[in-house]
Amino acid sequence: MGIMRALVKTKPAPGLELLDVPRPEAGPGRVVVRVMATSLCGTDNHIYRWDEWAQGRIHPPRIIGHELCGEVVEVGPNVTMVAVGDYVAAESHITCGVCFQCRTGNAHVCKDYRILGIDEDGSYAEFVRLPERVLWKTSREIPPELACLQEPLGNSVHAALVEDITGQSVLITGCGPTGLFAAAVARTAGAGLIIASDVSDYRLDLARKLGVDHAINPNTDDTDLIKRATNGEGVDVALEMSGSPTAIHKCFRYVKNGGRVTLFGIPAAQVAFDMPNEIIFKGIRVYGVTGRRLFQTWYRLAGLFKAGLDIRPVVTHTLPLDKFAEGFDLVAKGQCGKVVLRP
Amino acid sequence: MGIMRALVKTKPAPGLELLDVPRPEAGPGRVVVRVMATSLCGTDNHIYRWDEWAQGRIHPPRIIGHELCGEVVEVGPNVTMVAVGDYVAAESHITCGVCFQCRTGNAHVCKDYRILGIDEDGSYAEFVRLPERVLWKTSREIPPELACLQEPLGNSVHAALVEDITGQSVLITGCGPTGLFAAAVARTAGAGLIIASDVSDYRLDLARKLGVDHAINPNTDDTDLIKRATNGEGVDVALEMSGSPTAIHKCFRYVKNGGRVTLFGIPAAQVAFDMPNEIIFKGIRVYGVTGRRLFQTWYRLAGLFKAGLDIRPVVTHTLPLDKFAEGFDLVAKGQCGKVVLRP
Amino acid sequence: MGIMRALVKTKPAPGLELLDVPRPEAGPGRVVVRVMATSLCGTDNHIYRWDEWAQGRIHPPRIIGHELCGEVVEVGPNVTMVAVGDYVAAESHITCGVCFQCRTGNAHVCKDYRILGIDEDGSYAEFVRLPERVLWKTSREIPPELACLQEPLGNSVHAALVEDITGQSVLITGCGPTGLFAAAVARTAGAGLIIASDVSDYRLDLARKLGVDHAINPNTDDTDLIKRATNGEGVDVALEMSGSPTAIHKCFRYVKNGGRVTLFGIPAAQVAFDMPNEIIFKGIRVYGVTGRRLFQTWYRLAGLFKAGLDIRPVVTHTLPLDKFAEGFDLVAKGQCGKVVLRP
Amino acid sequence: MGIMRALVKTKPAPGLELLDVPRPEAGPGRVVVRVMATSLCGTDNHIYRWDEWAQGRIHPPRIIGHELCGEVVEVGPNVTMVAVGDYVAAESHITCGVCFQCRTGNAHVCKDYRILGIDEDGSYAEFVRLPERVLWKTSREIPPELACLQEPLGNSVHAALVEDITGQSVLITGCGPTGLFAAAVARTAGAGLIIASDVSDYRLDLARKLGVDHAINPNTDDTDLIKRATNGEGVDVALEMSGSPTAIHKCFRYVKNGGRVTLFGIPAAQVAFDMPNEIIFKGIRVYGVTGRRLFQTWYRLAGLFKAGLDIRPVVTHTLPLDKFAEGFDLVAKGQCGKVVLRP
Repeated sequence: MGIMRALVKTKPAPGLELLDVPRPEAGPGRVVVRVMATSLCGTDNHIYRWDEWAQGRIHPPRIIGHELCGEVVEVGPNVTMVAVGDYVAAESHITCGVCFQCRTGNAHVCKDYRILGIDEDGSYAEFVRLPERVLWKTSREIPPELACLQEPLGNSVHAALVEDITGQSVLITGCGPTGLFAAAVARTAGAGLIIASDVSDYRLDLARKLGVDHAINPNTDDTDLIKRATNGEGVDVALEMSGSPTAIHKCFRYVKNGGRVTLFGIPAAQVAFDMPNEIIFKGIRVYGVTGRRLFQTWYRLAGLFKAGLDIRPVVTHTLPLDKFAEGFDLVAKGQCGKVVLRP
Repeated sequence: MGIMRALVKTKPAPGLELLDVPRPEAGPGRVVVRVMATSLCGTDNHIYRWDEWAQGRIHPPRIIGHELCGEVVEVGPNVTMVAVGDYVAAESHITCGVCFQCRTGNAHVCKDYRILGIDEDGSYAEFVRLPERVLWKTSREIPPELACLQEPLGNSVHAALVEDITGQSVLITGCGPTGLFAAAVARTAGAGLIIASDVSDYRLDLARKLGVDHAINPNTDDTDLIKRATNGEGVDVALEMSGSPTAIHKCFRYVKNGGRVTLFGIPAAQVAFDMPNEIIFKGIRVYGVTGRRLFQTWYRLAGLFKAGLDIRPVVTHTLPLDKFAEGFDLVAKGQCGKVVLRP
Repeated sequence: MGIMRALVKTKPAPGLELLDVPRPEAGPGRVVVRVMATSLCGTDNHIYRWDEWAQGRIHPPRIIGHELCGEVVEVGPNVTMVAVGDYVAAESHITCGVCFQCRTGNAHVCKDYRILGIDEDGSYAEFVRLPERVLWKTSREIPPELACLQEPLGNSVHAALVEDITGQSVLITGCGPTGLFAAAVARTAGAGLIIASDVSDYRLDLARKLGVDHAINPNTDDTDLIKRATNGEGVDVALEMSGSPTAIHKCFRYVKNGGRVTLFGIPAAQVAFDMPNEIIFKGIRVYGVTGRRLFQTWYRLAGLFKAGLDIRPVVTHTLPLDKFAEGFDLVAKGQCGKVVLRP
Repeated sequence: MGIMRALVKTKPAPGLELLDVPRPEAGPGRVVVRVMATSLCGTDNHIYRWDEWAQGRIHPPRIIGHELCGEVVEVGPNVTMVAVGDYVAAESHITCGVCFQCRTGNAHVCKDYRILGIDEDGSYAEFVRLPERVLWKTSREIPPELACLQEPLGNSVHAALVEDITGQSVLITGCGPTGLFAAAVARTAGAGLIIASDVSDYRLDLARKLGVDHAINPNTDDTDLIKRATNGEGVDVALEMSGSPTAIHKCFRYVKNGGRVTLFGIPAAQVAFDMPNEIIFKGIRVYGVTGRRLFQTWYRLAGLFKAGLDIRPVVTHTLPLDKFAEGFDLVAKGQCGKVVLRP
């Protein structure tokens, strides 16, 4: 058994430790992947900060991290879908396979799934063990710092494309990574108009780099721009990617009658709605979106890359594994798009 | 010009007056219908009581009423779709025909529609004038006291069948007329399990007459019945027909991951949601439903009648026009299903 | 190891032999089911007759049969979803689990599936070995002679409900078992009008027992009845369950513009279409349907049973296993609905 | 009343005559449009050649032409949606508004529609009279030689986007104008792979200019390229835009199990299908597509233009009205994309 470096939540307290730990071994239906890139997610930041949610959910010791790509270096018995040398990313939800949701095409809302880096040791390490069925073979044309982002990017693909978006007008509230990814996806999918909003000018600059039509800061800009840009109609599609109550209400205000709203961002507290005017009389469809459809979203994403989806502007920082603290500081300050670690 | 009896909101105050007024005449594209039955709606009760909503919306004098059936007795120039003698009901939304919604198959959420009995004189009268395009030819096999109910029944058809319900488990919160109608529709459409809830035992009795599997009073019954009746899964479909915040949350609590919620009932105040747990992580679809699809819902309803849809238990009272005050008292007390007036 | 009786295709020739053979044993992920009822399918009849298709597809020796229900009597290692004593039916398609179709919710058109009773020993026996993942736990309220029919009935559920059928007018061509099942499903699902056609008066009688509105024999009846019964519009839905070219064209002729056609019946030869007038200018949707959605169709079917789906009139004959020849004779003559064997 | 130049089918024989005719006048609900550009369609060529179809359908004298854009120069009584000076294109189907299809959102398959340039005088003229409700206000950013193409382009939008195409692999058979337009639409909508096929190298060159991934000539190229380019899976989507029986079968052969086929091209004779292997066992969806959805397709197209849809390579020739014979010769020889006339 070998040794590897890994970022471990060793105790119930803020921070992570970079340690030498035993390298995992493959088992039945499981493989070992050498991690080539792994990225920082808001969830990881919660665990790093050890906030209330993390305290109730994580049981140290645990290697965290769930966004990754790498190369298969060992396969266990009964593994048939991948081979040593394959270049792969991974679905982070390890679903039960037997619940109603899993058996009816909705495994992304499995009633009993386990999450990589939370319920099992994750990817902030040189190697990670994974069930073969969560692996996603990836084209070598996609470099590791992008390939590792397919998991969070898949969230945005799912959120943006839960209904067809081609030729439609789109409001995206929140220009964190998933909002930015959603903008890139909508652009590639032929959205006719994309308005992105955020309170951070740094993030709005990133949105502009992705080619949105309008990037607006509700603190300083005239938000009636949305009405003007849509001839007073409002948008066909609103993608709520921020969790901000103000932004949530903006989505319901500006979506047109008969339109659709995707809710992806997680508010920190309850949000009160004027249901008749925000939802019922508008005759809209509201989608709660979480995770990625297994594996429709992954196939769709592969097609989007072929169609020219370019998310490089979102990757603002690439760091070696031991600079993780610097990465989490960037996340805390919001002065970054996606931060990628290279173990 | 003849004279007819009509219930008129003559002044900005509670009540209605039964008066002799001029009988309307047909005009270009318009017809006169002799009203054979017209029913009481919650909206009419708001106008009768002259509550805050009504004070801001109604401009007396106005003949109210918008649920009706009758016989065409006069047709104006350019009328081509109906003829004198036709037995008809009427869509109550007089849509603009030119807005985005009207031009893309969503006229039920027209940005500029007028409502019969609110923006134009309505059906609590011996005769009513209507644009031909809102008329719906009805089979004579459906007697007037049921035919006049097609407008509110259409709401329930729209709400229940916004997605296929066949073979699915359904929770219906609220057993007022639209909830009861939704139960009848779901039963006819082959729902596998129907659980109806209401705080009124009177209304639960009506639900039982419509053949629901379980009629539960959350004040007295064990609401865990919903979990037990669905093997712990929750329901595939929740139809919120009450507007009660408690009931609304029940829908989101008991719908299964990947299921759908229809929101039809109108809450009186804002409702606060735990969005992650009630919507987002469940991966559900939420539909705001209002009105009827023009005219898909009406065709669907005609098919449901042929399929055996039986709403007779919902019609608890039929009164002559001059007993209207008795009808509104029944509505106020909740001791009724649908109250039908026969002018 | 025990002995059991089974119907075996022992050699490449017509017929089957009732033999004593070794009783199967469970293995990893596999269970043994004591067969309580197993029914005759057209496919089995092809194998029995040893027609050209069977000669190219079946490799004797083989126990045939793929429609069954029974009780689990032995479970192998790693079996988690069922237990000894469970009352089960079985999906007959043993899908690969790894192809594009399997990974995107379309396992019913898996590129590499194996079929029970063709590629593996089947259910015309006292016991059968099955992978646990094809088992479907069934309510004991459904007796064996109906529970074994869930596989073919699932075909009809899939065919009829590929789109919502509630309140719609339906033409069903072909009143063999799958056509009859489709009629029963459409009736339970609230179809507004059901017209069934077949050239066999025996089968039309069965259709009438299932409550269709019209059962017509194109050889003797006025087929313009379809136009009359639909006010000249044609039907919303045509379900082609016969494979007869005449019937296929009837579906395309009588479906209304904008309607849908399900193609399920298998024609024996090529069929020539007037594509512009039968498909393109009508703006219709045509669905090729095979198998059952895994496992949406099975859940849907369970709900339909709860909704009152009654297929008993279709089960015209129940025979002991050793009377199989009598059963196949009935199938050959078309003087039966479904024939069930009780091992 | 003024005089204008127009191309008139004056008698039941091949050809057209350029004549001075009375300029049309607006009437109730009707407007006069000064034609700025009008394009040649295959239908117009049939009329020009006076083939069997044209002989049965056209009643001279008739000004033909139905693809146009221009400026409103006169409005009749009751016209409310457009004004003098508006820049407009036109839907060529003048639908009845009262049939089942028109009342349920499927006016594109209206049972009783009239066609511009066939049933009413058309656009090969300096002026054309049109009902206001078929007009489509167009952005001045789209020049006349492209704006006039919105009608045929709408066919391709409808055909390509009848289901979401983003991220999917697409086979387009036929690179006439509608096939080329479909390629441009699919590219803008983010299709992951586009393979276009045609027997004309001239047209394949146009396809390449639109950015398809592969442009193949089945007479000379290795059509197994389709399998190779899709990893042996076949395509998600096949768009049949040619009407060629060989191409039609190619669509059904190469679409993957569970995929979809759009049928738009019109074959000249019956086409025989191996239904089990081409449709049923593949579990595919087949869409007959004709016309444009009123007006969803038009709105969608406006959004596509904003998303960057560029169809300029398809417009290979622009001619003055009096050079019409040269245009029809180009069409007959297939040495053109779209030919636009400028009256």
